[in-house]
Amino acid sequence: MREPILLTPGPLSTSLATKTAMLTDWGSWDDRFNALTASVCRDLLQIVHGEAEHVCVPLQGSGTFAVEAAIGNLLPRTGKLLVLVNGAYGRRMAQIAAVLGREHQVYETADDTPPSAEQVARLLQADPAISHVGVIHCETSTGILNPLADIARVVQQAGRRLIVDTMSSFGALPLDLRSLPLDALIASSNKCLEGVPGMGFVIARRDSLQASRGNSHSLAMDLLAQYEYMQQTGQWRYTPPTHVVAALRAALDQYLAAGGQPARLARYQANAELLIERLSATGLKLFLPPALQAPIILTFHAPDHPGYRFADFYQAVRERGFVLYPGKLTHQETFRIGCIGAIDHAEIEQACAAIAQTITHFGWNR
Amino acid sequence: MREPILLTPGPLSTSLATKTAMLTDWGSWDDRFNALTASVCRDLLQIVHGEAEHVCVPLQGSGTFAVEAAIGNLLPRTGKLLVLVNGAYGRRMAQIAAVLGREHQVYETADDTPPSAEQVARLLQADPAISHVGVIHCETSTGILNPLADIARVVQQAGRRLIVDTMSSFGALPLDLRSLPLDALIASSNKCLEGVPGMGFVIARRDSLQASRGNSHSLAMDLLAQYEYMQQTGQWRYTPPTHVVAALRAALDQYLAAGGQPARLARYQANAELLIERLSATGLKLFLPPALQAPIILTFHAPDHPGYRFADFYQAVRERGFVLYPGKLTHQETFRIGCIGAIDHAEIEQACAAIAQTITHFGWNR
Repeated sequence: MREPILLTPGPLSTSLATKTAMLTDWGSWDDRFNALTASVCRDLLQIVHGEAEHVCVPLQGSGTFAVEAAIGNLLPRTGKLLVLVNGAYGRRMAQIAAVLGREHQVYETADDTPPSAEQVARLLQADPAISHVGVIHCETSTGILNPLADIARVVQQAGRRLIVDTMSSFGALPLDLRSLPLDALIASSNKCLEGVPGMGFVIARRDSLQASRGNSHSLAMDLLAQYEYMQQTGQWRYTPPTHVVAALRAALDQYLAAGGQPARLARYQANAELLIERLSATGLKLFLPPALQAPIILTFHAPDHPGYRFADFYQAVRERGFVLYPGKLTHQETFRIGCIGAIDHAEIEQACAAIAQTITHFGWNR
Repeated sequence: MREPILLTPGPLSTSLATKTAMLTDWGSWDDRFNALTASVCRDLLQIVHGEAEHVCVPLQGSGTFAVEAAIGNLLPRTGKLLVLVNGAYGRRMAQIAAVLGREHQVYETADDTPPSAEQVARLLQADPAISHVGVIHCETSTGILNPLADIARVVQQAGRRLIVDTMSSFGALPLDLRSLPLDALIASSNKCLEGVPGMGFVIARRDSLQASRGNSHSLAMDLLAQYEYMQQTGQWRYTPPTHVVAALRAALDQYLAAGGQPARLARYQANAELLIERLSATGLKLFLPPALQAPIILTFHAPDHPGYRFADFYQAVRERGFVLYPGKLTHQETFRIGCIGAIDHAEIEQACAAIAQTITHFGWNR
């Protein structure tokens, strides 16, 4: 009877305070809504210590819209993007470059293998045409954490620019733009910030954004135009998802009150550790080596039993009150569990019990 | 103390039932959410009687994202768009074609002048390269109603295709795709359907959509890919604005229960008539001739007084509990009032009283 708890990488379970923030209708032209937007952007920038050289540009749509906007705006039409791929979101970034008709090259590693910073350095040295590098911080396909600091260092040393999809890590993993040389990072409202889906944002170097005039392939996704219009008027350029913005404001209030990024990471880390401990005891095996596994979303091998079907597993766990997430690997049968959202010790214990009961019920541990 | 009533063209005041539908978190992969999306698309298609030859494709983002997607997908890269402009939204459609690098031509008339179907016929005859015509049904800049049936007839007779921005009219004004030959229409969740902002949709001829492969300038806005993915999986291609979709479902339930399009139009018509009657008595003059004025958003000339400032007017009416909308005309001082949203006789009476008190307070009627 209770609504199920989402163990998913977003949309995820949000707090009641976040959802009830959507019970107000806001005028998109009104000063009070403009102040709400400005405060959200200011807080997003502060979370990654980007006040000195970066600006935050929100964008309507899902996170992918914001990734496409970052590539389409920050990569000059004559630029070339080296995309580091070890999962579906890296592949999607390369696909964006392809659809937009921008030169690009892919450096792909296996799903369980982070890109090598040394190899990135070699690729940049070999091809002076590469102007930008794109990478996924935490690849949601598996939950693997890519070595962002090492990559940022070699990209900076080579005099190129780095665009990072931090969709799954923003707000939980430490990101400090004072020491991490990023041209831009992209995230959304509905991951570790625990808002509801409907907006993304790009945090970009102010000078890079200002140099991007004429790059955009799209009117609605023109980040510089969105930024300039917002600077001039306080308003979004086209109708904002007002309720989603208000929910993000409420989610940020809770985030800051609870202790910000270190506290968020500690809760997710505890969720991840408990999930790994309990599910390992059930006989399930983590896909990644623990050192590569971010505490955001965990990939487990499916039970090693001929009768296993994900659809059955999903439905049975759903009936027990928890929503799992399918695997995204083509060569191995896996499933995923998110550690993120408004969930803590109690929900994780309940979920692990439901999963163990389900596996026993189907006899997949025999 | 009460939250203000929005007399705006969207985001607008929504019912409590619509907003409370956002108090559930939905998994984007879950069957129950897929069923919600499918039922929303089915109802949107039925509202315009498009079941036979059209399909409904929802899209994340504001209405402008959906307009850009319609132009970018349905207009072949070698096509040419004739855009009928008599306000900001017509100009925006032409701007989309320009940014997307698509051939286009503008036929512009004054803000208070509908395009002439005869002139459209002449332009189509003069230029065989024009493949598509784009028009705004109700131009929100003024609230003018453009002669859609006449234009559709001449476009069909010339063997071209018509793309219509019905953002402000969908759900309130009658639109019947069984008799109105449209290639596509575009609208959003947060206008006459009285949902919250965050998604648009394109209702397109199935054959036109299927012929659009390779046209899209964007990955995230690829309508055919969104449609095919949804047909195959039931899911949105990228993270949907789950709460916004749930709110639209609730708004549609209320829409249908109240009597659908005829009932919605009757309420808005009554709101418009009462606004015109009461504000005319205050000395305010409607910008458009009544025959051209749709009962969606009304444009009034500003009070003819040297002391008038819209910002003062707005704030004073805001303090009395109502949010007005600025004019969008460059040559004349106007303001706008929406007739749409979860508002009826009582709210309109209160609003007119607040406006009259404000004008008297400032002495703008002296």
